[in-house]
Amino acid sequence: MKQPVRIAVTGAAGNISYSLLFKIAAGEMLGTDQPVILQLVEIPQAMDKLRGVAMELEDCSFPLVHGITLHDNPFDGFKGIHYAMLVGARPRSKGMERADLLEANAAIFSEQGKALNDVANRDVKALVIGNPANTNCLILSRNAPDLDPSQFCAMTRLDHNRSLGILGNKLGVNPSDIDGVTVWGNHSPTMYPDLHNATALGESVIDQIDESWYKTEFTPRIQKRGAEIIEWRGLSSAASAAQAGLDHMRDWALGSEGKIVSMGIISDGSYGVAKGIYYSFPCICEFGSYQIVKDLEVNEYGQSMMKKTEQELLEEKAAVDHLLPADTAESRENLRTSTDGQTQFDNGVDAASAYYKADRIC
Amino acid sequence: MKQPVRIAVTGAAGNISYSLLFKIAAGEMLGTDQPVILQLVEIPQAMDKLRGVAMELEDCSFPLVHGITLHDNPFDGFKGIHYAMLVGARPRSKGMERADLLEANAAIFSEQGKALNDVANRDVKALVIGNPANTNCLILSRNAPDLDPSQFCAMTRLDHNRSLGILGNKLGVNPSDIDGVTVWGNHSPTMYPDLHNATALGESVIDQIDESWYKTEFTPRIQKRGAEIIEWRGLSSAASAAQAGLDHMRDWALGSEGKIVSMGIISDGSYGVAKGIYYSFPCICEFGSYQIVKDLEVNEYGQSMMKKTEQELLEEKAAVDHLLPADTAESRENLRTSTDGQTQFDNGVDAASAYYKADRIC
Ligand SMILES: NC(=O)c1ccc[n+]([C@@H]2O[C@H](COP(=O)([O-])OP(=O)(O)OC[C@H]3O[C@@H](n4cnc5c(N)ncnc54)[C@H](O)[C@@H]3O)[C@@H](O)[C@H]2O)c1
Ligand SMILES: NC(=O)c1ccc[n+]([C@@H]2O[C@H](COP(=O)([O-])OP(=O)(O)OC[C@H]3O[C@@H](n4cnc5c(N)ncnc54)[C@H](O)[C@@H]3O)[C@@H](O)[C@H]2O)c1
Repeated sequence: MKQPVRIAVTGAAGNISYSLLFKIAAGEMLGTDQPVILQLVEIPQAMDKLRGVAMELEDCSFPLVHGITLHDNPFDGFKGIHYAMLVGARPRSKGMERADLLEANAAIFSEQGKALNDVANRDVKALVIGNPANTNCLILSRNAPDLDPSQFCAMTRLDHNRSLGILGNKLGVNPSDIDGVTVWGNHSPTMYPDLHNATALGESVIDQIDESWYKTEFTPRIQKRGAEIIEWRGLSSAASAAQAGLDHMRDWALGSEGKIVSMGIISDGSYGVAKGIYYSFPCICEFGSYQIVKDLEVNEYGQSMMKKTEQELLEEKAAVDHLLPADTAESRENLRTSTDGQTQFDNGVDAASAYYKADRIC
Repeated sequence: MKQPVRIAVTGAAGNISYSLLFKIAAGEMLGTDQPVILQLVEIPQAMDKLRGVAMELEDCSFPLVHGITLHDNPFDGFKGIHYAMLVGARPRSKGMERADLLEANAAIFSEQGKALNDVANRDVKALVIGNPANTNCLILSRNAPDLDPSQFCAMTRLDHNRSLGILGNKLGVNPSDIDGVTVWGNHSPTMYPDLHNATALGESVIDQIDESWYKTEFTPRIQKRGAEIIEWRGLSSAASAAQAGLDHMRDWALGSEGKIVSMGIISDGSYGVAKGIYYSFPCICEFGSYQIVKDLEVNEYGQSMMKKTEQELLEEKAAVDHLLPADTAESRENLRTSTDGQTQFDNGVDAASAYYKADRIC
């Protein structure tokens, strides 16, 4: 038997976690030979409910669960963890402005970033599921300067899985026979589900579908699938979000077997995307890390779609910029490697002020 | 790849199913090499919600799911099925008498029994999860005269798993290192969780625990665990019930690997339990069927506990007896095999009237 790994789950008393935890515990994420210690994190008001969830986990007598601990703060909850599933977030309440939502979540993910930085295992992998996932992930990573930005991801796997499921259904093939789908950008209605490099049973997908179906039916459907689920089910996606979360983490940890998966990762400037935002790219995972698939063709339509979602992420970043600590490690690296003198987190928007901030804070 | 099997799930838009379906679809029940076709059954009013659930299943792009069909009645929903997970049931509403609850469910499970009889695969295995599970199972089976009573089970696996989980925690051993636990009787607070033949890492459990802890803490805790969960979580057990359902079905279909599991099955009179009720016994599963473990010692305390829960099941049966069709196949068999002239479904309570019913109806 392997040694147990420590997995923290935040928002552990919420709906997504109620699906996620019992799948992790059964070995769906890291394999049925990998014991786990579950470190469940909630806000103080939800600790009673969380205890009920932990009791149900105990009631399943899962052989792989070697321990369950309950925490009302991330500095305890993240101690020694190898994996973090960051599900808990502040939902948008009625009348709340977008900026308020970003700020409320910035507070949560700043604290969690610091906690990861201080107490997590040095090779921790953290997946942000709580929305706005990409920008929360940016805040998280920037608050954990001792960890590498590539140890953080925002989840766009649900959008990716939805694309496979709906496309598979349309073409009458098993979703596992489809490869090369990419969801680019933000986990939001601006995301760009790109089928131009997709194949089904080895044959080009784009040749088999109607362009107008792709652009006016498929694309908006993927972009607004969350709302469609709420309309029918009366509740937001939970089980499918949980499944996507574990698919993401499983592939990241154990490999994607040569298949392209969409992951919200720190942009290194590939495909002309602004550096320093968490943007969803096509990735292949192996040996516990991801690689961006670099050589995909993007046509003009695609480029405009990619820009739009990039723009949204830059705006989200601008809205929380005043809350972000400087990106010291990366600024340094940029100073060494870039010739145009731009840091990776300003993306040419305002290089001077970016330097200024870096200077001022460190 | 194996041929897909057909699995019906009733109450498919409810809470237990929301945990269960996404685990079946991921291969937790029948293995990751077994494709499935999911036949989801609900009441007409819940069909929209059910559609939302099916959309989320699609959104997971599960490779094993070769089809999903939605049905508002069991005669369509049970066509050709190999497995039935019967989760849907009428809950007890405020002011409802126990007899009314039994009758409301009798109507549901009579219809479903007829449907299984008429349209299911001839080797179907049906597990009743909806409460009152044991008596619902009796009604189901009696309405499916062409199928064998051993093709039906009532779920007591949650009580079994809870016993393993809580005992493992108490002894500081992994639940998988415990064997020989039996939950006897009805899935209700009269159940008898029996640790007298249990071992942990090969050592007798009863020697390691305090008798008063066993009788005054452990036993009532298992019996009333459902209420304890509701108290903390604010909602009834769903994920743990789903896990128990799939553990039951997996072991039944693929074998329990020599381990004792508790299953609500048709009593054959073993351990002096009245024949013809669905009572939870210690079983070992192999080659797709269960065998009662026959040679366990039951002390005087155990016998009185077993009687009490048997008595409750006989009373439940008496309350629905007027709704049950005669048990023709088994009456015939009893006529052939028994010398005392008693059928297996009357248990000496009133043999004459039992015969009378059989005569009258067939
Ligand atoms: N990335 C995606 O594809 C995707 C998909 C679906 C949902 N989501 C997001 O996932 C999040 C969770 O969804 P849900 O349905 O489980 O919501 P939920 O409201 O049922 O659960 C959220 C839980 O998080 C807890 N929480 C809030 N702040 C916390 C904090 N600071 N620390 C720890 N726990 C905290 C809450 O108490 C609650 O129990 C939401 O933000 C939702 O928008 C993302
Ligand atoms: N045996 C056990 O150990 C155990 C454990 C927990 C719960 N249960 C029982 O399981 C049942 C389901 O629990 P839940 O939490 O999922 O309840 P739920 O109310 O969330 O879901 C039940 C679903 O069944 C549906 N339904 C009702 N009548 C139906 C019918 N005739 N055909 C098809 N669907 C029908 C309802 O529309 C509903 O969607 C309850 O009876 C509960 O008491 C049993």
